[in-house]
Amino acid sequence: MSFSPLIEQLIAALRCLPGVGPRTAQRMAFHLLQYARGSGLDLASRLQQALQHVKHCIQCRNLCEMERCQFCANPTRDHTLLCIVEMPTDVVAIEQTGGYKGLYFVLMGHLSPLDGIGPDELGIVELLRQFDKGEIKEVILATNSTVEGEATAHYIGALVKQRQIAITRIARGIPLGGELEFIDGGTLTRAFLERTPLEG
Amino acid sequence: MSFSPLIEQLIAALRCLPGVGPRTAQRMAFHLLQYARGSGLDLASRLQQALQHVKHCIQCRNLCEMERCQFCANPTRDHTLLCIVEMPTDVVAIEQTGGYKGLYFVLMGHLSPLDGIGPDELGIVELLRQFDKGEIKEVILATNSTVEGEATAHYIGALVKQRQIAITRIARGIPLGGELEFIDGGTLTRAFLERTPLEG
Repeated sequence: MSFSPLIEQLIAALRCLPGVGPRTAQRMAFHLLQYARGSGLDLASRLQQALQHVKHCIQCRNLCEMERCQFCANPTRDHTLLCIVEMPTDVVAIEQTGGYKGLYFVLMGHLSPLDGIGPDELGIVELLRQFDKGEIKEVILATNSTVEGEATAHYIGALVKQRQIAITRIARGIPLGGELEFIDGGTLTRAFLERTPLEG
Repeated sequence: MSFSPLIEQLIAALRCLPGVGPRTAQRMAFHLLQYARGSGLDLASRLQQALQHVKHCIQCRNLCEMERCQFCANPTRDHTLLCIVEMPTDVVAIEQTGGYKGLYFVLMGHLSPLDGIGPDELGIVELLRQFDKGEIKEVILATNSTVEGEATAHYIGALVKQRQIAITRIARGIPLGGELEFIDGGTLTRAFLERTPLEG
């Protein structure tokens, strides 16, 4: 004997959320049923809305409900500059700095052959099509500084170099406020290798 | 600048789930949008179904979609025995032991004046109405062995004692497999106080 069918089905369905196991799903279901029916119903309709209408921007692959995202559709942004990132969250992080005014291309992941993620899954074909339009003058590779992110940057870098497009990688080194004593060896080595001339 | 409106609304709505903060909500939203649209839509409909149709059993207050739950509606269960628990999860835990064949009464919480949970919120009026029907011969108090659970048991115990109904509290003592060395003092004191005659 367990809970009634609708409750059991709700608990099972909640497990599609990342990091939610059987106990957490059960706790969530009872919390919603007992204290938050209104917000639960609201969540149901938001889920339906977002999952049915959010798609990829046809130009940069970012997630949005329009055909083109707010960046690609904005004529005041610099359309000659393209920043390549892994995820939509990276776009938000870069936008929050307020310093970048070009466009983005969102890979929606990184190369990971073991998980079956190759160039096709990252939209490299769309990316090449954009290069071939001839509008882009500089590509900034802003994938994560992880093994997979570096490999992805390396792969895209090789493709860009075959074209007349400038290419840069975001700087890797010690973060602001970082104390040398506590920085890992890899970062420190990279900071020495990529040292820059003193300004002023 | 942040995500597109539908994604922002989904992230905000996901925060109604217990233990889900802004970062987790964001991770959940992107996971659903990228890898699990089907299960996400399924979750939306299960949520709607459960939140619209699951209500309280009119007899025992357990959550179910019928008028009476599977226990109250079952004529083969012992209707003279009533076990009082805090939550529907407690009912499932007791059912899994397979040893109890009476009915339940689910308080849906415990007395907690600071949170505004008093006798009215725990359905004490419905409970008294059941006592007054005269069918119940024994009440088993199976609230948690926490401060609030004990207070709730004490409160209900006082109400039952005014009537011709036997009342018991589930035993508190060392759990099966428990080693005395590692048992807390309170449990050990209780185990000594409530020692039982040796069988056989």
